[in-house]
Amino acid sequence: MSKASLDSSVPVIADAATLRPTIDVARRAGKVIGLVPTMGALHAGHISLVEASRRECGLTVVSIFVNPTQFGPGEDFNRYPRTLQADLEMLSGRDDCLVFAPWAEHMYAHGHVTRVELDGPALPWEGRFRPGHFSGVATIVLKLFNLVGPDRAYFGQKDYQQSVLVRRMAADLDVPIRIEVCPTVREPDGLALSSRNRYLSADERERALSISRSLRLAATLVRDGVREASAIVAQMRAMLTQAGLRIDYVAVADRDTLAPVTTINGPVVALIAAHVGGTRLIDNELIG
Amino acid sequence: MSKASLDSSVPVIADAATLRPTIDVARRAGKVIGLVPTMGALHAGHISLVEASRRECGLTVVSIFVNPTQFGPGEDFNRYPRTLQADLEMLSGRDDCLVFAPWAEHMYAHGHVTRVELDGPALPWEGRFRPGHFSGVATIVLKLFNLVGPDRAYFGQKDYQQSVLVRRMAADLDVPIRIEVCPTVREPDGLALSSRNRYLSADERERALSISRSLRLAATLVRDGVREASAIVAQMRAMLTQAGLRIDYVAVADRDTLAPVTTINGPVVALIAAHVGGTRLIDNELIG
Repeated sequence: MSKASLDSSVPVIADAATLRPTIDVARRAGKVIGLVPTMGALHAGHISLVEASRRECGLTVVSIFVNPTQFGPGEDFNRYPRTLQADLEMLSGRDDCLVFAPWAEHMYAHGHVTRVELDGPALPWEGRFRPGHFSGVATIVLKLFNLVGPDRAYFGQKDYQQSVLVRRMAADLDVPIRIEVCPTVREPDGLALSSRNRYLSADERERALSISRSLRLAATLVRDGVREASAIVAQMRAMLTQAGLRIDYVAVADRDTLAPVTTINGPVVALIAAHVGGTRLIDNELIG
Repeated sequence: MSKASLDSSVPVIADAATLRPTIDVARRAGKVIGLVPTMGALHAGHISLVEASRRECGLTVVSIFVNPTQFGPGEDFNRYPRTLQADLEMLSGRDDCLVFAPWAEHMYAHGHVTRVELDGPALPWEGRFRPGHFSGVATIVLKLFNLVGPDRAYFGQKDYQQSVLVRRMAADLDVPIRIEVCPTVREPDGLALSSRNRYLSADERERALSISRSLRLAATLVRDGVREASAIVAQMRAMLTQAGLRIDYVAVADRDTLAPVTTINGPVVALIAAHVGGTRLIDNELIG
């Protein structure tokens, strides 16, 4: 579909050269600029970020870009859902929003050689199972920060490790921005909303509930006084395995460094990545 | 020396939190903001950058920071000249300038884990002989861009490969800035100005002239019709070796990709890095 032919009540800009002057007009009018970076396939989780931005900002820029550099070889870049018309319909009626949907060849021009790398909290968990993923994320997020120049940017807690790294990157590189992390939106039965949920069959979707259930189990165990992380992880793994999931990792980790915790003596985060059939899902819960 | 006790007619800011509001005042007054990033030990080469900025900008921010992350193990970080009082005297009387001289612990706070990496033109020459150097440069330059928010930044052609990479990084990361590269300033006898020249004994300084002489030789050979890069490099190497220099590299390269050139059919850059006694010097010349 040509972007010019899209039917949208929200302005759509595909070209970085047009984006900047448009945002400058709003900025000069004294508006606070919010950015919600997405890969499209919008769901209620994304909309909660958009609404958080709209409450605090005069102009909300929703970027929609399936960023190739954050997908590894063999991952789902090619089949990742691209639903721009439906995305625009979900945003319609919000006249304080603007969609930035750039072309890949504009975002990564011929000769592009620069990337942002993080150590520390980027290394474990997703960093180990998806080498290069966070470098791709950090690089595209920084590019969007520079293109939009937002005062605030909104990320979902669903991608917990990502949210830690985006905060870290913004602080380390002195980006003048406030990073807001909004709660995970869930289906009534607990499944965390994800653009990848649409890959699930009915049976897989049922089995995927073991992810949020095992996170709630972890929270319950901690509330009941269990302090040994390995005991909690073992019970979580058992629940996931029972449901037929293939586990990448189950972790109880420090909320900032993401280092694994041995004894739980304060706030931690429980993290899961697991495959349900051919679909890889992640989820997490703040505990304590 | 305490920065508070410095005798300076140019305002000196050491604290990033003070810098931003100060620059914002100038920006709101409609001034174009220029940045001249330096490691101090200012000489006429730096001043030429400052003057270029002053011609084009209403406020020139001169940063002075000996950036630890761009020095490799065994390099001269500890003995690199730190001459802040003399630097301020060189800038005095320029009331459209402001010096930003941050503390290292402010620039790299506890937990800093982010770095900018470049491939392509960052890999050969300095990239090979100083692993990590360009990542350190790119990271600090991006931090300064974000702290200062300049419209333009000024770099010397003396560090040719660095200037290519800074342009590349700014384009790749969509930094809204114009990068200006100013000609190398030389002593009357041809020696390129460098803060490291002060390490040279009288004898070493004399022998160091072989660097600029061999660059001029390369230009002459090309003008006389020599097209084979290897023949030119061989003559340059002979001249440097004759003067007792230890060569890191001598190259004739593409101006953008920095890939070595075999046959000279258009504009190229000749590059040299060599040690004179304990001092490593670099220089270059645009040819054709």
